Amino acid sequence: MLDGKNRIGFQASAEGDQTFKVFSPVKGDLLPQLFYAATAEELNKAVRKAKQAQRVYRTKSNEEKASFLRAIADEIDNRAEGIINTAALESGLTRGRLTGECMRTTNQLKLFAQVVEEGSWVEATIDPADPKRAAPKPDIRKMLVPLGIVGVFTASNFPLAFSTAGGDTASALASGNAVIVKAHPYHAGTNELVANAILEAAKKTGMPDGIFSSLNAVDFSIGQALVTHPDINAISFTGSFRGGRALYDLAQTRKDLIPVFTEMGSINPVVILPEQLEKKPLELAQTLASSIVLGSGQFCTNPGFMVVMKGKGLDELKLKLKESIEACIPQLMLHPNIRVAYGEGLDKFNAFANFKTLATAKTEPKENESGAAIGYMAAKDFILKPALAEEVFGPFSLLVECDDEDEVLEVLESLKGQLTTTVMGTDNDVKTYQDIVDRLRDIGGRLIFNGVPTGVEVGYAMHHGGPYPATTDGRFTSVGVDAVKRFARPVAFQDAPDEYLPPELKNRNERNIWRKIDGQLSRESIT
Amino acid sequence: MLDGKNRIGFQASAEGDQTFKVFSPVKGDLLPQLFYAATAEELNKAVRKAKQAQRVYRTKSNEEKASFLRAIADEIDNRAEGIINTAALESGLTRGRLTGECMRTTNQLKLFAQVVEEGSWVEATIDPADPKRAAPKPDIRKMLVPLGIVGVFTASNFPLAFSTAGGDTASALASGNAVIVKAHPYHAGTNELVANAILEAAKKTGMPDGIFSSLNAVDFSIGQALVTHPDINAISFTGSFRGGRALYDLAQTRKDLIPVFTEMGSINPVVILPEQLEKKPLELAQTLASSIVLGSGQFCTNPGFMVVMKGKGLDELKLKLKESIEACIPQLMLHPNIRVAYGEGLDKFNAFANFKTLATAKTEPKENESGAAIGYMAAKDFILKPALAEEVFGPFSLLVECDDEDEVLEVLESLKGQLTTTVMGTDNDVKTYQDIVDRLRDIGGRLIFNGVPTGVEVGYAMHHGGPYPATTDGRFTSVGVDAVKRFARPVAFQDAPDEYLPPELKNRNERNIWRKIDGQLSRESIT
Repeated sequence: MLDGKNRIGFQASAEGDQTFKVFSPVKGDLLPQLFYAATAEELNKAVRKAKQAQRVYRTKSNEEKASFLRAIADEIDNRAEGIINTAALESGLTRGRLTGECMRTTNQLKLFAQVVEEGSWVEATIDPADPKRAAPKPDIRKMLVPLGIVGVFTASNFPLAFSTAGGDTASALASGNAVIVKAHPYHAGTNELVANAILEAAKKTGMPDGIFSSLNAVDFSIGQALVTHPDINAISFTGSFRGGRALYDLAQTRKDLIPVFTEMGSINPVVILPEQLEKKPLELAQTLASSIVLGSGQFCTNPGFMVVMKGKGLDELKLKLKESIEACIPQLMLHPNIRVAYGEGLDKFNAFANFKTLATAKTEPKENESGAAIGYMAAKDFILKPALAEEVFGPFSLLVECDDEDEVLEVLESLKGQLTTTVMGTDNDVKTYQDIVDRLRDIGGRLIFNGVPTGVEVGYAMHHGGPYPATTDGRFTSVGVDAVKRFARPVAFQDAPDEYLPPELKNRNERNIWRKIDGQLSRESIT
Repeated sequence: MLDGKNRIGFQASAEGDQTFKVFSPVKGDLLPQLFYAATAEELNKAVRKAKQAQRVYRTKSNEEKASFLRAIADEIDNRAEGIINTAALESGLTRGRLTGECMRTTNQLKLFAQVVEEGSWVEATIDPADPKRAAPKPDIRKMLVPLGIVGVFTASNFPLAFSTAGGDTASALASGNAVIVKAHPYHAGTNELVANAILEAAKKTGMPDGIFSSLNAVDFSIGQALVTHPDINAISFTGSFRGGRALYDLAQTRKDLIPVFTEMGSINPVVILPEQLEKKPLELAQTLASSIVLGSGQFCTNPGFMVVMKGKGLDELKLKLKESIEACIPQLMLHPNIRVAYGEGLDKFNAFANFKTLATAKTEPKENESGAAIGYMAAKDFILKPALAEEVFGPFSLLVECDDEDEVLEVLESLKGQLTTTVMGTDNDVKTYQDIVDRLRDIGGRLIFNGVPTGVEVGYAMHHGGPYPATTDGRFTSVGVDAVKRFARPVAFQDAPDEYLPPELKNRNERNIWRKIDGQLSRESIT
């Protein structure tokens, strides 16, 4: 049962008079539930509560924090049926996809629980004193500590895994921060159900009131107030370039600077090298087509850009791509804005004289659906129009044809930062065209060999974050364990009494974590 | 022998017609050498060379990079006499201080050499494949890679350790980047001598032409061009808040966003707790006075702010502080701008009715010198004037007197981010006033117990970087081994052929570095 209210810590709140309903692409109509957009004063209340709560929360033991994260996963599991039904109605995504995404979300929470419990993520580092040195050397010990309150903007294309209890929230809570979520207006119902799960978990595990809040918004005002609130210590965002950059710029007007991590997507270039192309043109075409239309192309890692050298296999590749894309059944888009923007993106390409359509889905899209499309053009034409390297969010990809290796390098040189890059090549290809592969490494955050960029593993080695404009800071990832590093900073303690030090830095390594002592990794205690 | 020219890689260059001379506070006059400010075209040349050079340099083995860093240290040692003489003339700092700073600089280079040679700093992380999983799990491996070209602004207050071959240059080279230095106009001669040492080391160890360049500047134009150059990948700066923030803001106008790390100093609050005050008022006064006047207070970690609760020992503390400061002999200031700004800073305080001078140096300052000064005021007056919490760069400190613990907390609550915070307290004090100590931890980058903030150890555990406005990103340090993290970003390789992978990520752990495999630290090879 939804009530449409904001969650200011444990309190449901509807103080404002701005209300809205969620459009369902499945129904083609507004859903009945009325939601109350948060007011500036409700945001202030959430921040005040969060500030108090975080000071208590950060002192909770690792076990307590881990049990909170696991309890969130359990509460989501308990409510999975309702959450998935609501998300399906609000997003138009299939139940199958949402069931997978739900599992990904709870697994992610459990992974962070494990990381918190193990404890080494704080990067404890100890340089012991040397009183005998000419100028006596002090004892210095440092570790990561939480930043405070993290404002999380939820993503429309992952209503679960990159939203209310998604990777940003999980990593912010894992590193000891309070979280205030700005819910996406197109999945306000899903958000409320997941927020309830988080709050129930907080109650059951004795977490302080205010450690998590969720605010509804229908226009930009609450998001802007969140980014500029003086007591917010970090922001994370997943979404469009325009949205992410606007929030980033707004944050520069604050009195203080805070970390603003925005993941803004990219075109995820795929380079197909000659030997592989000659060997497997049909397989490549099929693999790529499936990745392009997956989830109607609404992934930040969608392969929207393919580069190939003219040669054997190209005709087969194109023919098979054409066949596969034409056969694709149009799918529902997440919401009307995305559907409209997709159409406008295609129009931009079609308006360019040297762009040729290779294929469009044969089936006519129904209401709120979009069909896949692929186009191609010569490298020399592409290079002249940098605007053609901008993302078209949806099931579209552009194939750029090059005369030779130099032209491939020139095309890659013209691209900006990417979340992922992909090379399709035999071992021979990789050796022969190492300059191309190296260039792909240099412009992206993750370099994939003979696979597709869609599907982002949640683990220790994942890096989901590339140079700008893929993100606002390519040194951080928003997926995987290291996502915690966005929301923590080192503090060094010099000559602190052992009694005052946090457990991770005390002489006795009671948690048995890995620490760097005098530059050497060790689990020993200090004697 | 100086020639006053820029260094565009191995080439001395003087294409511009803007020239300048360096003012010597020792001589009270301009030094004879003419320096040529770099032109925009000289900057472009340096960047073009750096881009080529970095692509070669990053492929050099760890041993080669380490030998380059050690060779720089050796070349500096070979020229130490001349470097120190020139630096003394240009900065007014004593030969003793500069000899120490020179050793700090070469030790720093050698420490980074050791870190590069050992190799684990790249944070190699491997999540092996699991082909048996329902959706087969790919092999993902990530490590830190260099950003490209780092633009380094040298600091006037450390002509060696935070300048041409200082921590920024050393950490940027260690992590595989090319460096372009914008020399400080007040130590252009020292810069040239050190640049020569770096370039000689590069030649001797076979490093590519362009891996290091040094540009002279007399106005802001070259610095601005460096920050906005499209091929510059990161900026580091140590200096004033105004300068750092201006460069940071300028960087936001770039087409792409890049890391801009600026260390902008702070007032480094010291809280003196009651039991310690009662026990050791004289010792505390002496310790603090020495730290306040060290190097004429021209350190970013100068203790410019002291907080105390009224009670036993306070009168003795103030009396002894007065005595010590009055006895201090005025010292040369680095350059006239700093001397003038110091005077203006004192004027600002003196103009405030509730500010009382406790002591000023009795000896009249000679030309280009400044004398130390200490003032005090009541907490309730201080809290009303946030402008009084701004740094006065030089030998000044403000003592704020509080009625009770709550007032101390209120004062601390009003402060912005700090590089360091210090608590003077017995173990009992630390327990009794834990809220105060925790608050000091929360606003700074390094929390010192019963010591002084001046003196920043170069090691593994050092954190020299606090929340804004101490720096533009408190998650990074500009001193110590972890300074490399500012100039590197992770790249993940998915299902890469072992042959293509960098040595750090290959199956065989031939460098015997620490790697995280499936979340576990290990030195094992992958089988």
